Amino acid sequence: MQRFRLTIEYDGQPFMGWQRQPHGPTVQAAIEDAFGAFAGEIPTLFGSGRTDTGVHALGQVAHVDIVRPFTPFRVMEALNAKLRPLPISILKCEAVDADFHARFDCRGRSYEYVIRNRRAPLTLTRGREWLVSRALDVDAMNQAAAHLVGTHDFTTFRASRCQALSPVKTLTSLDVSRSGDRIFIRAAAPSFLHHQIRSITGCLVMVGDGRWTPIDMLSALQARDRTALGHNAPPDGLYFMNATYG
Amino acid sequence: MQRFRLTIEYDGQPFMGWQRQPHGPTVQAAIEDAFGAFAGEIPTLFGSGRTDTGVHALGQVAHVDIVRPFTPFRVMEALNAKLRPLPISILKCEAVDADFHARFDCRGRSYEYVIRNRRAPLTLTRGREWLVSRALDVDAMNQAAAHLVGTHDFTTFRASRCQALSPVKTLTSLDVSRSGDRIFIRAAAPSFLHHQIRSITGCLVMVGDGRWTPIDMLSALQARDRTALGHNAPPDGLYFMNATYG
Repeated sequence: MQRFRLTIEYDGQPFMGWQRQPHGPTVQAAIEDAFGAFAGEIPTLFGSGRTDTGVHALGQVAHVDIVRPFTPFRVMEALNAKLRPLPISILKCEAVDADFHARFDCRGRSYEYVIRNRRAPLTLTRGREWLVSRALDVDAMNQAAAHLVGTHDFTTFRASRCQALSPVKTLTSLDVSRSGDRIFIRAAAPSFLHHQIRSITGCLVMVGDGRWTPIDMLSALQARDRTALGHNAPPDGLYFMNATYG
Repeated sequence: MQRFRLTIEYDGQPFMGWQRQPHGPTVQAAIEDAFGAFAGEIPTLFGSGRTDTGVHALGQVAHVDIVRPFTPFRVMEALNAKLRPLPISILKCEAVDADFHARFDCRGRSYEYVIRNRRAPLTLTRGREWLVSRALDVDAMNQAAAHLVGTHDFTTFRASRCQALSPVKTLTSLDVSRSGDRIFIRAAAPSFLHHQIRSITGCLVMVGDGRWTPIDMLSALQARDRTALGHNAPPDGLYFMNATYG
């Protein structure tokens, strides 16, 4: 038995998220089935965290145990071959100790949200960015973001079906930056609530276009009430960037 | 009668290139038909240059004459509405003098070619980058590129069905740079031969992976013979960036 750590990239558009579902394609099921096709066993894949329908990943991490002896390179090549033509790519495969756990050992997760701030419709990046046509004020968005950094009760920014035991989370960093007509929102935390980043992004856009002041963001946080929420950003612009360990 | 200058972005994948064809969808035909759908007349669109099947554009320029009185903003909005769901976007529309000509007045065209230099298959950027798994030496590629800058007979790098009167062209600049596992090849010239950038890119990759030396690129140029060519790069990674005037 050997445990492998996989680093995974995927386009979230054709999938009902990361986690295996009884109906509909998911990233976890696709990779588990690819293992089955080359290793003759369908193992269980443990991801660092779940992503929702339509959410992308550039550096998802997962671990898996395989009985038959394969080198990490062979595992990576075989998975990539069997995953074709699905838009899932194994970027890296490493042999790890049997006590490594992709979910429980993960010390930090980071996400990036990409907004395209222009009037014209998207072409090449459709499904991969959120098109916001109203002009956005990045300075105001950063002021609002600063109110959320740290340890808070994030009930306002939590999906109704979120399964976390507590709404208290520590947001390590939340930065907004502009490059041309793209706006990047980068968030890092030990862990996130369900829909937390998309909820926060929706509210940051309300600040950016002037419907909210930065102080309204603080009020929304302090309300600890989902009805104080602006609106959720769509999954299109959200990328799971990486998971950190050790 | 009013002449408009359009700046256009498109995903080349679903199109048989820019120019209207008797069979199959093209970018020019899609925009002309969109004019027909809102203005009641199907005008002729003059592009700064043609792009091939699968080649993208971030800043194609074209002009068109419209009889009925519309503001530039109205033209842009109506075209974008009628073009849905095709991946073509009118980024800008300006009223221009009747003597402006998108093709004949164009003083310079620039293209960018994006190579993804990694082993793992592409996911989010499939059809939008060329995946090259062999490690590429960007310094060697730049040395080879330097041999091509200036005025030369580019017969080696010309498609057999190229319609240009002369194979002599002036390459204003040709730069290769790396950012992470992406390699960008940027080319600018008053005008290009058919397949010139894809031919040059194919040869630059042969230099990058060591099959050619930079001097082999010079020999290929001096051969003035298409059989001296390495191989063409695919259209996937090629972007028409902009056209300059005046």
